[in-house]
Amino acid sequence: MPFLFHRLLIVGVGLIGGSLGLAAKARGLVEQVVGFGRTEANLKIALDRGLIDTYTFDPAEAAQGTDCVLLAVPVQATGPAVQQFLPSLSPGCIVTDAGSVKAPVVATLESLLPDSLPCVAAHPIAGTEHAGAGAAFETLFEGRLCVLTPTDKTHAEALARVRALWEGVGMRVEEMDPEVHDRILAQVSHLPHLIAFSVMNGLLQSFPHPVQPQSEQVDPLVYAGSAFADLTRVAASPVEMWRDICLGNREALLSAIASFEAALTQMKVAVTEGDGQALSADIERARQERQRLTRLREKE
Amino acid sequence: MPFLFHRLLIVGVGLIGGSLGLAAKARGLVEQVVGFGRTEANLKIALDRGLIDTYTFDPAEAAQGTDCVLLAVPVQATGPAVQQFLPSLSPGCIVTDAGSVKAPVVATLESLLPDSLPCVAAHPIAGTEHAGAGAAFETLFEGRLCVLTPTDKTHAEALARVRALWEGVGMRVEEMDPEVHDRILAQVSHLPHLIAFSVMNGLLQSFPHPVQPQSEQVDPLVYAGSAFADLTRVAASPVEMWRDICLGNREALLSAIASFEAALTQMKVAVTEGDGQALSADIERARQERQRLTRLREKE
Repeated sequence: MPFLFHRLLIVGVGLIGGSLGLAAKARGLVEQVVGFGRTEANLKIALDRGLIDTYTFDPAEAAQGTDCVLLAVPVQATGPAVQQFLPSLSPGCIVTDAGSVKAPVVATLESLLPDSLPCVAAHPIAGTEHAGAGAAFETLFEGRLCVLTPTDKTHAEALARVRALWEGVGMRVEEMDPEVHDRILAQVSHLPHLIAFSVMNGLLQSFPHPVQPQSEQVDPLVYAGSAFADLTRVAASPVEMWRDICLGNREALLSAIASFEAALTQMKVAVTEGDGQALSADIERARQERQRLTRLREKE
Repeated sequence: MPFLFHRLLIVGVGLIGGSLGLAAKARGLVEQVVGFGRTEANLKIALDRGLIDTYTFDPAEAAQGTDCVLLAVPVQATGPAVQQFLPSLSPGCIVTDAGSVKAPVVATLESLLPDSLPCVAAHPIAGTEHAGAGAAFETLFEGRLCVLTPTDKTHAEALARVRALWEGVGMRVEEMDPEVHDRILAQVSHLPHLIAFSVMNGLLQSFPHPVQPQSEQVDPLVYAGSAFADLTRVAASPVEMWRDICLGNREALLSAIASFEAALTQMKVAVTEGDGQALSADIERARQERQRLTRLREKE
């Protein structure tokens, strides 16, 4: 089977970029993977682990002969990241990304890229709380969903090839309007991360760390069970990535926060009033919807 | 090795009660385990799975010859549950519980039980989102923490025997003031559950289910990744149990909600204002504290 791409340039060889390099090479989808990033330490790990075949810090060298560029960087960095390659990319090279926010990324890419460089925005919905080339693994994408957000300007052939790339590493691929994507992801991903951060910060506020580590003050984390550990797992996620998602998806995120706050307030009122019936109704509704998620995930 | 208890009566043979029966029998801690509960279907499952040796619906028969009663019922049911056995329990029988809220349970038990029936309140911090005898398993308690909340009235020998029971099934056991327990657990367990329920309910509010299942409306749960699934896992927890915890630990829970809301509001303001620096600081602080939890759990 011929290669889907001859030379894939991965900008940002972290969990997503690195895992794609590894998986695409393992499946024979690409002939060569070139890594580009900020720190040599990370790129060396990527090279050692076989996520990439080579790396460079020279944008012109990186762009040379590349027929696909994957921008796997924090969403606010997407524009600056692609700009450095623009003078050197060959016509027809496909530019794609892996950001968790799509509308502003699509707008940025479409405004920056000439017609000769087709772009296809993508969001592979896969990840862990770990970052960097050391966290990448080949099966990250298997069975997971990848959302492509084409617009009127998207070239059909480029769209098909980016679809083939993500399907090639085992993802189910779906197309969606960028704004709809952002509104849904605000609810099912961005808000949960904000909540996880806030649970940790609320706890720090209630139980400030003892000034003297040897003091008698109790450490609440010692009493945390699996519910707390699972709920806050993603609070260990990378700072820049999540700062950028919050900034990039502001409106949808604020709307998701508002829905959540309304639901929490309803339970808070029931707790305040000792209203067992209202609490039971809230818990039962949540429980049924969560059980529906379990069934959905079992079907996958 | 002699048995710790000859006849252990488990009232409420669910995840906790059933797992304790199974583990205590497997470790030779008890000679006989008697189950008592509301529904015969659940008790039959418990019997079939070997969680208990026998069961009865007759309180007098259940109490006969019992030297330890474990009340593994929703916390508000603890008082009514123990009252039915009071006329029939032999002097010296130890009464213990496994509730997630301690101060009101301690108050209830100490007010209801005569001096001849020593009581020791306990909270084995272990569990899953699943309920009933079918969800019980022998290793549930291994390596986890059990908090005992003795008071001035607690008999030293009874305390030692209840400690031996939970240590016998593999738990680390610690003693703590009931109010301190409730304040900590509000933060690290009760609040996270309330949040998980509210995330599901907030989502239902933002994306109401389509009236016609075949309509084109998008189902946000299809786009939920592992962050959402893990964060909301405990939203599938049993209704009565969590209604009772909310009602039983009202003050501490409201205070935990307030700390969390303050932390979330701080991030919301930063999102609204597009303040990347404030967002980074919030995320970084949460991240470090969550990484500390990971290290604590790795040491266990």
